[in-house]
This record gives sequence, structure tokens and C-alpha cells, in this order.
Amino acid sequence: MAPAHPTPYVRPMKIAIASDHAGFALKGELVGWLLELGHEVTDLGTDSTASVDYPDFGHALAEHVAAGKAERGIVVCGTGVGISIAVNRNPVVRCALVTEPVSARLAREHNDANVLALGARVVGPELARGCVEAFLATPFGGERHKRRVEKLSKTSQDA
Amino acid sequence: MAPAHPTPYVRPMKIAIASDHAGFALKGELVGWLLELGHEVTDLGTDSTASVDYPDFGHALAEHVAAGKAERGIVVCGTGVGISIAVNRNPVVRCALVTEPVSARLAREHNDANVLALGARVVGPELARGCVEAFLATPFGGERHKRRVEKLSKTSQDA
Repeated sequence: MAPAHPTPYVRPMKIAIASDHAGFALKGELVGWLLELGHEVTDLGTDSTASVDYPDFGHALAEHVAAGKAERGIVVCGTGVGISIAVNRNPVVRCALVTEPVSARLAREHNDANVLALGARVVGPELARGCVEAFLATPFGGERHKRRVEKLSKTSQDA
Repeated sequence: MAPAHPTPYVRPMKIAIASDHAGFALKGELVGWLLELGHEVTDLGTDSTASVDYPDFGHALAEHVAAGKAERGIVVCGTGVGISIAVNRNPVVRCALVTEPVSARLAREHNDANVLALGARVVGPELARGCVEAFLATPFGGERHKRRVEKLSKTSQDA
């Protein structure tokens, strides 16, 4: 992916990434670009365009992030819907499905999202990159949003 | 909201709806329109633009749908991110955050989504209505997607 604009500096992070077959190509493009930017990337698969089940990859990524093995995660499926639901089953992970960078920024500022979900059939590679940039570059807004974010670690069953 | 195009017929359903303060105005517009279409709508709040916590409303809606009190749910916050995460903490509910009708349709066909999340700061009222129409009108695609949807009822902890 040739850069359409200069990429803002983001400190190197440990980033985990996972997709199903529909997200395989976009995942590959994002991995190459994140490595060029100096991030440490763990690719949890899938490893081809052969049909797989998105929940398996969403659950694996959520566990990886929840275990502290990566600071941020990125997941990709056709629309991002299925894999984002799977990731959000883990109550200590907060996965934001976005289609544009403004929501990626707000998901960091307001929701302290630590996983970003993208739909490879919905957003093209350059727009996906803009979403990832905003997701990596934006800090959590802190105090004003903290109580709400803490409530996301309670399931509706405990509430 | 004046119709921009004819609304396709959708059989009347029990629909629950909830939002935080940022989604209050869009929720009101959607409730009025859904009632005109003949749906039975349960509005779980919030009831004003006074600041509230989106997880409270997401959890309440998820419990309502999980208990079988509504066939479908709709949730609205600023971006849709926070409230969709809250809803998806409930393992028997599948909440799709969308910004356009194609993803709303695919979320029904592929993921059997029973809750739709919208961001009132991201999509305008007509686009939101298009998303809701696709969400209500599209049946689940069935067999080909069933195994994956069943896996969404397992949390990553059980997996």
C-alpha cells in the first residue's frame, strides 16, 4: 500500500491481528504496513483464503489481548460484524467496529477500545489504514469516560 | 422523518429500543417511524438529553431481548461503539454496529444479528432508517452460517 499522506508517528506497540478468510488479504496488507512502521505484530491467522469460522479467530485474539500479550488488537472479517461480536464476548476486551477514522478516534477517546474491527468487504485498504492510524495514535480521554468504560467489564448478567 | 423512498413491507415485530443521551433524538425519530409502520415498540430509555451511562442502557436492552420480550433490538449512542460493546457482553444476543444498509443486511444474513447499533453522531436519520429497514426486512441465511453463529454463544473463556 503506497501512503496517500504522511503517516503520523506512533510509538511502537505490540499488536495482534486476526481475520477469517474474507479478511485475509486486508490483514496481509495491514501486517506489512504495521511492520514497516516499526510495530511488533503477532499474526494469529487465518493463513489462507480457505473457509474458516470467524468466531474461532475472534476468540483467539480476545484471549491474546486479555492475557496482556498485545497492547492492541485488530480483527477483520467480511463486514467486521461477526468477528467483533466474538471479540466482545470477552468482558475485559473492548472491540470497536468502525468504517471511518472519526469513529476509530472516538472509540479510543471515549471507550478506551483496545481492539479495532474492520470489514474487508466494506472499507478499502486506504480507508482501513486511516482507521488503524486513528486507533493507534489516539489516547484514552480518561476521567470523564472512566466510569462508563468500567461498566463495560460487567456483563448484563452481573448488572 | 418524511420517507425518501417507499418503505418495504415488513411484518409487525416486537422491537425494543434504547439509547444514551447522545442517541436520544435519533431514538425518538426511529420510535415514531416504527410505530407508524405498525411495529410494537418498547422504549427502554433514556428519556432526555441529560447525561447517562451507555452501558446501563445497553445491558438493559440485551437482557430484554435475551428474555424473549422483543424479537429485535435497536441501540443508539454517539458512535454506536460503546453501547454495542455493552450489548454484546450478553452471550445470547448478537449486536451489529453498522453505518450503512449493506452491512445491516449482511449482519442478518450471515450473523443472525438480533440487535442493531447505530451512531447518532456518525449517521444521519435517513441513513439510519435505511439501516433499520435492511435489518428488519432481511431473513437469516441459515444453514451455511449456522455453525459460526452458534460459536458466538460461547465466550472466549469457554472456547
